Amino acid sequence: MRIGVAGLGKMGSGMARSLIRAGQDLVVWNRSPEPAEELVREGAARARDISEVFEADAVVTMLATDAAIREAILAQGVLERARPGMLHIVSATISVPFAEELARIHQEHGLAYVSAPVMGRPDVAAAGELNVLVAGERGAVERASPILGMFAKKVWPLGEKAPMANIAKLAANFALACAIECMGEACALARRNGLEPEALMELFTGTLFAAPAYKVYGPVIAQQRFEPAGFLLTHGLKDIRQAIEAGELSGVPLAFASVLRDNFIDAMAHGDAEKDWSAIAAVVSRRAGL
Amino acid sequence: MRIGVAGLGKMGSGMARSLIRAGQDLVVWNRSPEPAEELVREGAARARDISEVFEADAVVTMLATDAAIREAILAQGVLERARPGMLHIVSATISVPFAEELARIHQEHGLAYVSAPVMGRPDVAAAGELNVLVAGERGAVERASPILGMFAKKVWPLGEKAPMANIAKLAANFALACAIECMGEACALARRNGLEPEALMELFTGTLFAAPAYKVYGPVIAQQRFEPAGFLLTHGLKDIRQAIEAGELSGVPLAFASVLRDNFIDAMAHGDAEKDWSAIAAVVSRRAGL
Amino acid sequence: MRIGVAGLGKMGSGMARSLIRAGQDLVVWNRSPEPAEELVREGAARARDISEVFEADAVVTMLATDAAIREAILAQGVLERARPGMLHIVSATISVPFAEELARIHQEHGLAYVSAPVMGRPDVAAAGELNVLVAGERGAVERASPILGMFAKKVWPLGEKAPMANIAKLAANFALACAIECMGEACALARRNGLEPEALMELFTGTLFAAPAYKVYGPVIAQQRFEPAGFLLTHGLKDIRQAIEAGELSGVPLAFASVLRDNFIDAMAHGDAEKDWSAIAAVVSRRAGL
Amino acid sequence: MRIGVAGLGKMGSGMARSLIRAGQDLVVWNRSPEPAEELVREGAARARDISEVFEADAVVTMLATDAAIREAILAQGVLERARPGMLHIVSATISVPFAEELARIHQEHGLAYVSAPVMGRPDVAAAGELNVLVAGERGAVERASPILGMFAKKVWPLGEKAPMANIAKLAANFALACAIECMGEACALARRNGLEPEALMELFTGTLFAAPAYKVYGPVIAQQRFEPAGFLLTHGLKDIRQAIEAGELSGVPLAFASVLRDNFIDAMAHGDAEKDWSAIAAVVSRRAGL
Repeated sequence: MRIGVAGLGKMGSGMARSLIRAGQDLVVWNRSPEPAEELVREGAARARDISEVFEADAVVTMLATDAAIREAILAQGVLERARPGMLHIVSATISVPFAEELARIHQEHGLAYVSAPVMGRPDVAAAGELNVLVAGERGAVERASPILGMFAKKVWPLGEKAPMANIAKLAANFALACAIECMGEACALARRNGLEPEALMELFTGTLFAAPAYKVYGPVIAQQRFEPAGFLLTHGLKDIRQAIEAGELSGVPLAFASVLRDNFIDAMAHGDAEKDWSAIAAVVSRRAGL
Repeated sequence: MRIGVAGLGKMGSGMARSLIRAGQDLVVWNRSPEPAEELVREGAARARDISEVFEADAVVTMLATDAAIREAILAQGVLERARPGMLHIVSATISVPFAEELARIHQEHGLAYVSAPVMGRPDVAAAGELNVLVAGERGAVERASPILGMFAKKVWPLGEKAPMANIAKLAANFALACAIECMGEACALARRNGLEPEALMELFTGTLFAAPAYKVYGPVIAQQRFEPAGFLLTHGLKDIRQAIEAGELSGVPLAFASVLRDNFIDAMAHGDAEKDWSAIAAVVSRRAGL
Repeated sequence: MRIGVAGLGKMGSGMARSLIRAGQDLVVWNRSPEPAEELVREGAARARDISEVFEADAVVTMLATDAAIREAILAQGVLERARPGMLHIVSATISVPFAEELARIHQEHGLAYVSAPVMGRPDVAAAGELNVLVAGERGAVERASPILGMFAKKVWPLGEKAPMANIAKLAANFALACAIECMGEACALARRNGLEPEALMELFTGTLFAAPAYKVYGPVIAQQRFEPAGFLLTHGLKDIRQAIEAGELSGVPLAFASVLRDNFIDAMAHGDAEKDWSAIAAVVSRRAGL
Repeated sequence: MRIGVAGLGKMGSGMARSLIRAGQDLVVWNRSPEPAEELVREGAARARDISEVFEADAVVTMLATDAAIREAILAQGVLERARPGMLHIVSATISVPFAEELARIHQEHGLAYVSAPVMGRPDVAAAGELNVLVAGERGAVERASPILGMFAKKVWPLGEKAPMANIAKLAANFALACAIECMGEACALARRNGLEPEALMELFTGTLFAAPAYKVYGPVIAQQRFEPAGFLLTHGLKDIRQAIEAGELSGVPLAFASVLRDNFIDAMAHGDAEKDWSAIAAVVSRRAGL
């Protein structure tokens, strides 16, 4: 079986590396050539264009946004020329309506589709240790699972409608942002009252909040070191905006998400767009005159 | 050394039990007699009034609110008659300004004072497995620590000013309420989009949020079973109100806490005052027409 | 001078009527034929398609949304075939980025463009008593002003960049929605405390808030009669969403707008989409268990 | 009939002046002597202590806060020594629970009580042009009305329970703060998009918002001149806090009020406590990086 990978940013390259290590016959494509060349040195074949990738049996795409997928795939007629019955796995954090649209279009073209967004950083992807969310028609998920297993520590099946996986991914990123904001407010309260934020974060992560979300971001927030960025603040805003839009479309007012969006905008207005998204935790400190 | 315990609700009784098991000479008092009688059967002495408790070398009080402490201790002149130099450990979740006031009053009376709020449920208290936060003057904390160790899995020292421990406790309860609200919003979004809330909570607690706060409340929220109450919703509102007041006094606008307060009020207005405080997670479901 | 009007909903028809009464040579178009037929009986000429309207010297369009304009005008190549140098007046409440895009496209085609959103209901439009906001290049605004004067009580010039008028219109609708929400909260507080909401609204509109926004909506909210709709709740949500998006694009976190959006979503989830937008005032009543 | 006035701040002195001008036999008291001396020169008698004021047939008190009334009147036993059946008119903006408590205590002492908070600035009080809200038992309101009429342009009866007038006053101040916040957000959006805030405020106050609330504060906010203070920001925070508390007690979540409170705290944290309360409009500008 031949597998294609399109979109070789840090995450996409990491996932491709896991697939090579698993012994797959891989064909790769990226808009700019350098990342593909690197993978060719590690054993992948390089496609002359994105359509060639879609001649594989299955393709994983890790393009950054709805717009990027629309431009690189839909607008180019790639699906019309794809190998009949091939499986398309979209691992980017795309919007819920776009996932619905993609599922429908693939069906119209006789192609299989799953949404399979991932949780984890690039090094985790390269180590094959991601948490992968997956949803789509049963047969498509069954075909996708062994492939996903090559870069996943665990695959989380979330239902037979592809957008379910995207909802879950948005919910997880929303929950992360909530934890960040909560720690930001708690640390500002602590600091203003003479309590060391580090001590508070140790208490949190040593008791009720002994989980990666808090252990990773707690010290970052207590020490206010938001650079270099692990996940860009602008991308965080995009995800929260998509969560709010999904809420609007389905009739769910997300009060915490609205506060988060305002704080993301505040952070952007203060020049933090390129910092780590946990820099939204600085908003409350600034508002508290700290 | 003789230790007194005043306030024998579920938590106070649990802590007293741990002290008895540790072999302490214990004298206890409660406004209503029954809980004291039970502890007498287990080996404690019963004080004829609260002043007798304050003849011990150290007293742990677990009265529910600022007002209860004010009424039972300050208004009765108990501190005026207390054993000179005795140590008073207040383990209730009291407000920050009241902790400051207590620290000052005890100093004026030549008594030692620490704030030592606890994290954990009554059974954890009885098992001696609480997390205990402590702050106060160095000497007082040193005297308190071995006593706290008798009902604590771990003692978390938080500084030389007593209110630091109360700030930390309010921050922890605020963070718990944030996690509850976040899961409530995420589950409503999931449900409205056809994704099983249970599946989402499993994903959360199996990945980034593998911590007690989420493991305890995730299933409760996914299944919407808010009775019986582990922690009363009215008490949750009190703690969030105190966090907001501490924020106001120190100049920190807590945007998440403001959303929480509104949701607590909404829940109360819908008759949920006596349910578990995680019933605030039902607010967003109701707002979403679920 | 010949004037075209495209988009003959209630507002567009009212504005066309004012233009006929002012003695203008009018050519009209609408997607569905009936409204055009009525105006033909009153003296207007009927265009066979929208392109014929754009052969006039000036065109006023009152199509409902960005998407409607995009579809009926941009996608049909109407601007390519328009009379050279003609003036296009867009009176719909469109988004700020789309106003920018329209200004640029018209310039590229050698056409004049102004944004001229209006304030007022259909009967006010037919009476020629609207408040009209206008912005665009100086020459275009000079050409537009006498035309706008035919359906305006007053024309408010807002600058040389077309989107300024759209920002002002979004701000005005945002302010109206704020007044509605404020009265909703105040009336719920009154009702829950035994004070008649009508009495409170009389106090408001008899003292500090003696203005149309409060006089129109105060009694509506006090009596909770949200039907028939003067302005659809779904359209209100669209405008608040556009205000929030304009805020995001320009770096302004609009905290009140975020609350409003959540309440619009709440109202939609309770089946109020087709009611008057002041039905968002019912949200707080419902949350208060009233 | 002899009338007493206690509390001779700017507002109280203005009201006293209107009573003197109306030819009343007036006895006055203030904690610090100067304001009383001025009024004595204008014809008032000066009481040796506050109890002497309560020997009058009716007393108007204009003490700033719940605490000030508690200290100056309740704690001194003034009501115990008051002339039997005398009428006490409390014109300060006090909290709803305290108004309830005052009504009950006066009844227990056989005294008549009305809440009669006022709207207007000191010069309006001195000119006898205030809007006066009044509530209380029918007989008490009937006795109070002619007195209130001496400093009122209009008296607004709000019911037979005294706290109704306080709820209405809190609601009015809440609505004013909402208008301020709304204009602050709208002006920040305008400024960030190149639209003159002054032009926007002219549009507002020339159309839908042609009312004192907007005409007074619109230019202040557009020009960001928050000094000198007409109404102190700290007092504004007190009133919003009381509105929120009244909401909590009666089960009404006031989402706008929660945003306001956070912005008041933000303003205080930036040193604006002594500025006019409209300085909360600067919060969004600061958050927008303006």
